[in-house]
Amino acid sequence: MRHDGGMNEAASPQTIDLLIEAGHIVPVAPHGVVLQDHAIAIDKGVILALLPRDEARARYAPKETVSRPDSVLIPGLVNGHTHNPMTLMRGVADDLPLKVWLQQHIWPIEGAVIGPDFVADGCTLAIAEMLRGGTTCANENYFFPDVQAATYKKFGFRARIGLPVIDFPTAWASSDDEYFDRAGEVHDQWRDDALIKTAFAPHAPYTVDDDNFSRVRVLADQLDIPVHLHLHETAQEVQQSIDQYGMRPIARLDRLGLFNDRLIAVHMTQLTEAEIHLCAERGVSVVHCPESNLKLASGFCPACALMKAGVTLAIGTDGAASNNDLDMVGETRTAAILAKAVAEDAAALSAAEALRAATLGGAKAMGLEDLVGSLEPGKQADIACIDMAQIETQPLHQVISQVIYATGRHQVTDVWIAGKPKLRGRQLVDMDEAGILANARQWRERIGAVEISR
Amino acid sequence: MRHDGGMNEAASPQTIDLLIEAGHIVPVAPHGVVLQDHAIAIDKGVILALLPRDEARARYAPKETVSRPDSVLIPGLVNGHTHNPMTLMRGVADDLPLKVWLQQHIWPIEGAVIGPDFVADGCTLAIAEMLRGGTTCANENYFFPDVQAATYKKFGFRARIGLPVIDFPTAWASSDDEYFDRAGEVHDQWRDDALIKTAFAPHAPYTVDDDNFSRVRVLADQLDIPVHLHLHETAQEVQQSIDQYGMRPIARLDRLGLFNDRLIAVHMTQLTEAEIHLCAERGVSVVHCPESNLKLASGFCPACALMKAGVTLAIGTDGAASNNDLDMVGETRTAAILAKAVAEDAAALSAAEALRAATLGGAKAMGLEDLVGSLEPGKQADIACIDMAQIETQPLHQVISQVIYATGRHQVTDVWIAGKPKLRGRQLVDMDEAGILANARQWRERIGAVEISR
Repeated sequence: MRHDGGMNEAASPQTIDLLIEAGHIVPVAPHGVVLQDHAIAIDKGVILALLPRDEARARYAPKETVSRPDSVLIPGLVNGHTHNPMTLMRGVADDLPLKVWLQQHIWPIEGAVIGPDFVADGCTLAIAEMLRGGTTCANENYFFPDVQAATYKKFGFRARIGLPVIDFPTAWASSDDEYFDRAGEVHDQWRDDALIKTAFAPHAPYTVDDDNFSRVRVLADQLDIPVHLHLHETAQEVQQSIDQYGMRPIARLDRLGLFNDRLIAVHMTQLTEAEIHLCAERGVSVVHCPESNLKLASGFCPACALMKAGVTLAIGTDGAASNNDLDMVGETRTAAILAKAVAEDAAALSAAEALRAATLGGAKAMGLEDLVGSLEPGKQADIACIDMAQIETQPLHQVISQVIYATGRHQVTDVWIAGKPKLRGRQLVDMDEAGILANARQWRERIGAVEISR
Repeated sequence: MRHDGGMNEAASPQTIDLLIEAGHIVPVAPHGVVLQDHAIAIDKGVILALLPRDEARARYAPKETVSRPDSVLIPGLVNGHTHNPMTLMRGVADDLPLKVWLQQHIWPIEGAVIGPDFVADGCTLAIAEMLRGGTTCANENYFFPDVQAATYKKFGFRARIGLPVIDFPTAWASSDDEYFDRAGEVHDQWRDDALIKTAFAPHAPYTVDDDNFSRVRVLADQLDIPVHLHLHETAQEVQQSIDQYGMRPIARLDRLGLFNDRLIAVHMTQLTEAEIHLCAERGVSVVHCPESNLKLASGFCPACALMKAGVTLAIGTDGAASNNDLDMVGETRTAAILAKAVAEDAAALSAAEALRAATLGGAKAMGLEDLVGSLEPGKQADIACIDMAQIETQPLHQVISQVIYATGRHQVTDVWIAGKPKLRGRQLVDMDEAGILANARQWRERIGAVEISR
């Protein structure tokens, strides 16, 4: 197999920015393929070609060559659903019913500490964690999207930033109009950025009324951006909608014109057969957050049934305050094994299908499939390199199996976003790790004081 | 809180082998306790005391002091169910129905390669992996228990070695009598060893007939050792027993006198309310292997219901050919979050309860609770040290939550078994890591050749 730009082999070597050679490359598209002893040629942040290593050495004159004979290159992982500023609340209150967790811990803490510094510091910690685990793109969902966008941009991390809409006042906006005004401002500020995109992020069916959903629909069409929404997360949510609106949330969204190919539906643990097929018919994407759904006892998303019906399936970690990490390697493994138990079929959601969900699936859900999600010529060079020469991943019988079922995220050694190195030999590039850790300790004191004072 | 040997503080410092100081210690017994800035005093492999760090420095003159201010000490993890020689087949065949996996891949490979070298090399790789992930004790279940025992002993790793009994001939034994004869020989050889113990390991209700089960019962009583058995792993197993014996496997074992406090019942995904209570009544221990159960689509073990009924709950990884790792940190996390979804209660199987299952629960199930499973004076110094000063486990709001829900096994920096260092600053002590990796590569070729030749 070979992808290239149609170069003449007799020509003198072409100068390029970067050549990454690896023992194995899993491009994700085409599906299930493993290339052995290949290389990726990169210039100006874009993938030029995937080709055999020796051929690459003859054809290109790279300014930098990175050689990883014991490693696997995969597309950077795409985290389909996060609340990254909440990373500062990681593990602050666990093993509690959702209502107690939210009302007695998370909301009081947020009430006391939320603001631009909390959002910037939380995002920074999260970016460091994501890079150390091979994630290169995040679908973000929290308040202060302006601060988030600036933070992701600062570190050269790819993100789609949710523009929050919720029926009650928060530190971000005090009225419906203000939510939409501020959303428009943030969108305008980033509309032409290569790394930072936006989405509408109405919180959930039980916190957004029909008027606000209708405004979201009109504006999302107008700005041509996705709608990122918690949907059918719990049985209670569905029941509450039936009580209040006389229909299930999906039916209500459909009536409001929002159940379409702009919609990134997160969680989806409560689905009928008909709803699964409606997702496929309307082009709705589903972000599966298996560990959050398990830990909060929300239910089981029918991941395999959705995939079989033709729905775009992505994987998300949810926020570190509930999950409690941003580990896409582990989350994808959980998705793959949980899908089998839920489908009662050990062949359900194979390793290759799970890896596709965590990369190209996320990119498709986020409307970024032309840019990222697979290692193909013309796409951005968002790449993660995993060291397989460790006790835990030997012997290496099947590469994709090993990546999904045996690899730990700490085996990610190098990460590039748009061809720029972000992690190099486990060291963060252009991020002050000691400073981030010191800062996290400060937040531990500040948040701990809130918990004690109540 | 303080545990000590009642020493007089005015006395001159007592010479001891080792003092380990840590930012936090979770002794597991008492339940849920976190000691801050404490130390563990160790002499001749035994824990003498847990006490505040400054007090420890005044009271003891240790030959060696290990100081880990940013770390948590926990009891070494106890892997309640493994087939460690199979680590050489890690990921060789995934995403397949159980029958295809077993009959078309695992059995043909075993047929071609099984023998003392396979067992010794597989166990060695597994011991390296377990130590690198904080595991210090394994409940082993495979053929060639003599080779396993010698391998565990060689590396100073604590294990209970299953003495296999199965109704058909294998490379280990060719007749019923030979299984029991060889079991007796292996037991005799290791009967007085401090690290190596034995158990009977009849394979499963569908591969062991009533006569062999009856012999196991008599001999287990006589030798005073546990019985380690796959039980109620799948709905098919239960149905097959009903078809063949007119009763469910638990009822059959009960009739044969084996459903008692010697029994270590592994998997148990198919349980009625009455069976859960029978486990409690009879003192049967349950080893929960959540990731194997998910990946093979076996079903969901009611872990929380078992614990609430008073059943001793342990955690096991199962073999790396099916799981595909020996990661007790990850397995315990999966157990904790899966239990909540199965119980439909976000408060089910708390972090502290999950940690107890992975340590003291395993020790109890294996009949080793007087020796290991918690950090208490008089017990063996089997200890794992976890570095929490990493991006992924900051901020550190709640120590036990962080260990269970956010820690990766690669954060284990140091491990001691019976007070002897086995992992020091992530480096294996007295194991040749490069040699083990080279050996794993050889097995990759050898097993790969078997797969190709069929």
